[in-house]
Amino acid sequence: MAATGRARGPGTDHEDLVSVTAAARVDARRLWLRHEAMARHGATAAGGVNRQALSVQEAQAWQLLIGWGRELGLMPATDAVGNLFLRWPGRDPLAAPVLTGSHLDSQPTGGRFDGVYGVLAGLEAVQALQEAAHVPARPIDIVAWMNEEGSRFAPGMMGSSVFSGARGLQEVLAVTDADGVAVAEALADHAAAFADLPCWPLQRPVHAYLEAHIEQGPLLEREGLSVGIVTGIQGKRTFSVTVAGQEAHAGTTPSSQRQDALLAAVRIISGLVAWCHDPQDLVRFTVGRLDVLPNAPSVVPASVRFSIDLRHPDSQRLCHLGDGILAVCEAQAGPCRVTVTELSNAQSLEFPASIRQLLSACANDLQISHMDILSAAGHDARYLHEVCPTGMIFVPCKGGVSHNEAESATASDLAAGARVLTQALVALTR
Amino acid sequence: MAATGRARGPGTDHEDLVSVTAAARVDARRLWLRHEAMARHGATAAGGVNRQALSVQEAQAWQLLIGWGRELGLMPATDAVGNLFLRWPGRDPLAAPVLTGSHLDSQPTGGRFDGVYGVLAGLEAVQALQEAAHVPARPIDIVAWMNEEGSRFAPGMMGSSVFSGARGLQEVLAVTDADGVAVAEALADHAAAFADLPCWPLQRPVHAYLEAHIEQGPLLEREGLSVGIVTGIQGKRTFSVTVAGQEAHAGTTPSSQRQDALLAAVRIISGLVAWCHDPQDLVRFTVGRLDVLPNAPSVVPASVRFSIDLRHPDSQRLCHLGDGILAVCEAQAGPCRVTVTELSNAQSLEFPASIRQLLSACANDLQISHMDILSAAGHDARYLHEVCPTGMIFVPCKGGVSHNEAESATASDLAAGARVLTQALVALTR
Repeated sequence: MAATGRARGPGTDHEDLVSVTAAARVDARRLWLRHEAMARHGATAAGGVNRQALSVQEAQAWQLLIGWGRELGLMPATDAVGNLFLRWPGRDPLAAPVLTGSHLDSQPTGGRFDGVYGVLAGLEAVQALQEAAHVPARPIDIVAWMNEEGSRFAPGMMGSSVFSGARGLQEVLAVTDADGVAVAEALADHAAAFADLPCWPLQRPVHAYLEAHIEQGPLLEREGLSVGIVTGIQGKRTFSVTVAGQEAHAGTTPSSQRQDALLAAVRIISGLVAWCHDPQDLVRFTVGRLDVLPNAPSVVPASVRFSIDLRHPDSQRLCHLGDGILAVCEAQAGPCRVTVTELSNAQSLEFPASIRQLLSACANDLQISHMDILSAAGHDARYLHEVCPTGMIFVPCKGGVSHNEAESATASDLAAGARVLTQALVALTR
Repeated sequence: MAATGRARGPGTDHEDLVSVTAAARVDARRLWLRHEAMARHGATAAGGVNRQALSVQEAQAWQLLIGWGRELGLMPATDAVGNLFLRWPGRDPLAAPVLTGSHLDSQPTGGRFDGVYGVLAGLEAVQALQEAAHVPARPIDIVAWMNEEGSRFAPGMMGSSVFSGARGLQEVLAVTDADGVAVAEALADHAAAFADLPCWPLQRPVHAYLEAHIEQGPLLEREGLSVGIVTGIQGKRTFSVTVAGQEAHAGTTPSSQRQDALLAAVRIISGLVAWCHDPQDLVRFTVGRLDVLPNAPSVVPASVRFSIDLRHPDSQRLCHLGDGILAVCEAQAGPCRVTVTELSNAQSLEFPASIRQLLSACANDLQISHMDILSAAGHDARYLHEVCPTGMIFVPCKGGVSHNEAESATASDLAAGARVLTQALVALTR
């Protein structure tokens, strides 16, 4: 799928020249130093980042980003759900903007690139366009979406889902963190620190959305390529399974008289592994959480609750696999009772061909090695896809490691992704 | 195995008459009312008992028991590990005593009979013997062992194991509860409240030990019998298994590249269930505790730790099954690393034939229906067995339920067990 040859770009020869010139202005060192500066806010001892949504550390990251934006003449703004925008107005400030960005929040033991890269690549692209004297026909907004990770407030992608209208603002404001602090409360504190910013409406028209991100998987590194043109985001269904048995004395109760919830859960999970077996290795089946009650060594477990995270790029296959879970659970429950609750069901999605072709053509023009790639993880682009033409650009991360303090990427790959983004922004704003 | 016919008792016709007369003095109502009075100390809303070792509630239970003992002229005493004795001196106060009793501490949501019955049956037997004008040739000590349950301070059977010399006093004094309180500290507070009691030496000679207890299993009830003559205590080995894998993103990491600690644990437990399969249903295999890290729905588990509680009446079989655990774990671990640590190894034990025959003959003389029965649970008698001829008498409990607030037994079964105990005490102290 790698394509390094030169193909027709998205415009006239003159316009190609402008955009290639702009892309050449992308400064790998400047982009890298901004990652280093941003990583100081929430820095962990192991070299990673802990920058939770709406935390003091995220507010510091906002201040830093707003400062860089002001140096480039960009106008900062926010909205009711705590997204941050830096606007470059262009020739027609009333036209629907092109948005590009990602998020600044991280996992508790997160890395320096997940999310941050998409925001800083957008800033680098705007600076490169300014240096190349490109004047966009419509506004370009660099965006940092609120709470993509969902580690402080679950579920994540709050800012993008409310912005796009998929979730209601009030529903999201009521969510609380582990300390009982509601989003509404944390957001009020955060907004007070940025009271000088205008508050823009939710669900305003968007011309297009581009998001640059580290791959969080091993494929680009393995293929030795700098950029992935994301074809879509694989679907994901999540379930909670509860197995109810009966507490009993581990010494006195014969096996034949037990209702052992843990052994039933073990049979069920074995059955689900077999059900989800896939020689193509495309199915992602994970039991990440499992809790036993009363969880005492000499007591036969009374109940077990566990999570299922099931993903597949093909929506039909995902539907089939997910719909079969209950039957497997019931077949393996033995003397126990089992209940299955579906918590979420996000279909697989495919980004529009127009955006994918544009990004491929830009990479070809820049002679940047690339391949088509499916996103196995979710991103804010999932929600923007519902309201405007949307695409994503991946760059490799070392060993495919992400959501981890060891997360790593090279300055040259980060710059390559920013160059493709820069050239695509020319095409979308000419 | 039920035997209700009359057989030769353990003495002359005259002595038989004395002991049968004494056994007839056992008062089912008095015994029941003492259980009710004792259950007030640590009573729970659901009708059970929460009376932890060395707690205020256990001290209240001591006061009550000591008061009953003084009414019968018994002399209270304690020792360095906090066991309580009520001595009936008999004709030769310097002779090695017969001990009978059990424990007054309970599980956090325990019942009214587990442990308490053995102590109160001893008291009832002594009172019946006094009323029948029996004068024992050697002392009879009613004993309440410290911390049998091991729920506040783990492991349990502290009093009996230190008394018998199996564990060292200093080792036990250093154990702390969940609040960080050491046994030494709790014991000092407790002893201060009973400063008037003499403190007897540990590891003093004992002529014999008898312990009455509820069965904590379903067999006597199912057979419709009042008494079980305990043949022995089944062996128990406990292990801790740790499975180490690698944390990974549930969306991006292909199955073939995962080191999923939970799926490895599931395979291992399935393998262990197969390894311990027993058509005779004598093996007791329990995974009661299992903990996952980081235990997050969208993260492939990095590690799992689980407990194994393995019991079997036959020591050779228990040895074979336990020794095979590591190989099963390693065979099923796949890409993960597994370590197995043995925490305890208590061999199966068989009480001496002399005591079992004595107890059977007593039940026969009293025309009390009985059967031989193996104890599936551990008891203080395990440790006394190491230092003197030891035996146990079981009575039925409703549905086999124990370690539970719903624990229940009938006044007539409790009295039947106390009658067998009374008659056996005559034989052991004549």
